[in-house]
Amino acid sequence: MKKSLGPQTLAYPTPVYLVGSYDKDGHANMMNAAWGGICNSIPPSIAVSVRKERYSYDGILHHKAFTINIPNVELTVPADYFGLASGRNEDKIAAAGLTTEQATHVNAPLLCECPLVIECRLLNHFELGGHTQMIGEIMDVKVEESCLDGNGNPDITKVNPILFAPGNRAYFKVGEEVGKAFAVGKTLMGKSS
Amino acid sequence: MKKSLGPQTLAYPTPVYLVGSYDKDGHANMMNAAWGGICNSIPPSIAVSVRKERYSYDGILHHKAFTINIPNVELTVPADYFGLASGRNEDKIAAAGLTTEQATHVNAPLLCECPLVIECRLLNHFELGGHTQMIGEIMDVKVEESCLDGNGNPDITKVNPILFAPGNRAYFKVGEEVGKAFAVGKTLMGKSS
Repeated sequence: MKKSLGPQTLAYPTPVYLVGSYDKDGHANMMNAAWGGICNSIPPSIAVSVRKERYSYDGILHHKAFTINIPNVELTVPADYFGLASGRNEDKIAAAGLTTEQATHVNAPLLCECPLVIECRLLNHFELGGHTQMIGEIMDVKVEESCLDGNGNPDITKVNPILFAPGNRAYFKVGEEVGKAFAVGKTLMGKSS
Repeated sequence: MKKSLGPQTLAYPTPVYLVGSYDKDGHANMMNAAWGGICNSIPPSIAVSVRKERYSYDGILHHKAFTINIPNVELTVPADYFGLASGRNEDKIAAAGLTTEQATHVNAPLLCECPLVIECRLLNHFELGGHTQMIGEIMDVKVEESCLDGNGNPDITKVNPILFAPGNRAYFKVGEEVGKAFAVGKTLMGKSS
């Protein structure tokens, strides 16, 4: 039996994206965003929603660039802090004892300590109401070499990312593999004919 | 040391959304989509990207409605199958031995076996290239009562959803909690001043 909870922003899983940008003066900032996801394959693109009130908003539009930095479990505390404080009042990266470097393809900062980072060129932005959705073309993905498997592919268990659960208001790690994609479902093919 | 992998659709975690819609003749269909996420808080909205070639595409636009059904670990096989087969050729829901019911607020089918389901009214759609991004206003979220915690909030460990890892091309379950959101980061507040 299901209970109706009404209209709310509840889905599983939601990511923990640390969105990097420079402000108009070139100072690096990071914000925490859970409203986002991959949105297109051609060209490879990722969406992240930012409220106009956020300090990062103007910088992303000004430089037409941002980064998505994927924190691992060890970065849970700074990741949460990046969602609590504003770059308008604090140098959040220094406060967290973390470091940034210039991205290769776009004018935005990468968070060095994150095992997986994504460089994005702002392709478009859509006003949705409370949030503005930033559509970023993925110019490059960089992954720690220690997080690659034997075939050179990123392994989520080595990246060890966190995710956000809205109902619990908590962060969780990724558990064990439960099946291969584009594979385990083949047993059902043609069953309806 | 990081390795550059070039432009690709890689981020963690990505969700496993089973997108429900009726075709023009009123037949229920489900597709599997990993490109999506919550995109707005006012009004509560969720985005999911659908290629024009998908059988679900026309039905979503025709009825201006879809559902997002969150599968649990037990539904990994049908979830994968919903991404392999097309509703153009197979009655996927029957083949998987699953059942649907009419949503309360929109003209789209809910997948009864999923512990968490979301009813969406199509607010807008954006052509991004290979994919079209469907923006759905969340009209209701329904959760199995057995998946609520003592305070009546959904508990991700009880919903037991799966996620998709692009690099691994595999599904994973959610692991243990690693910290409370809007809480654990407070220790860093004001450290830069």
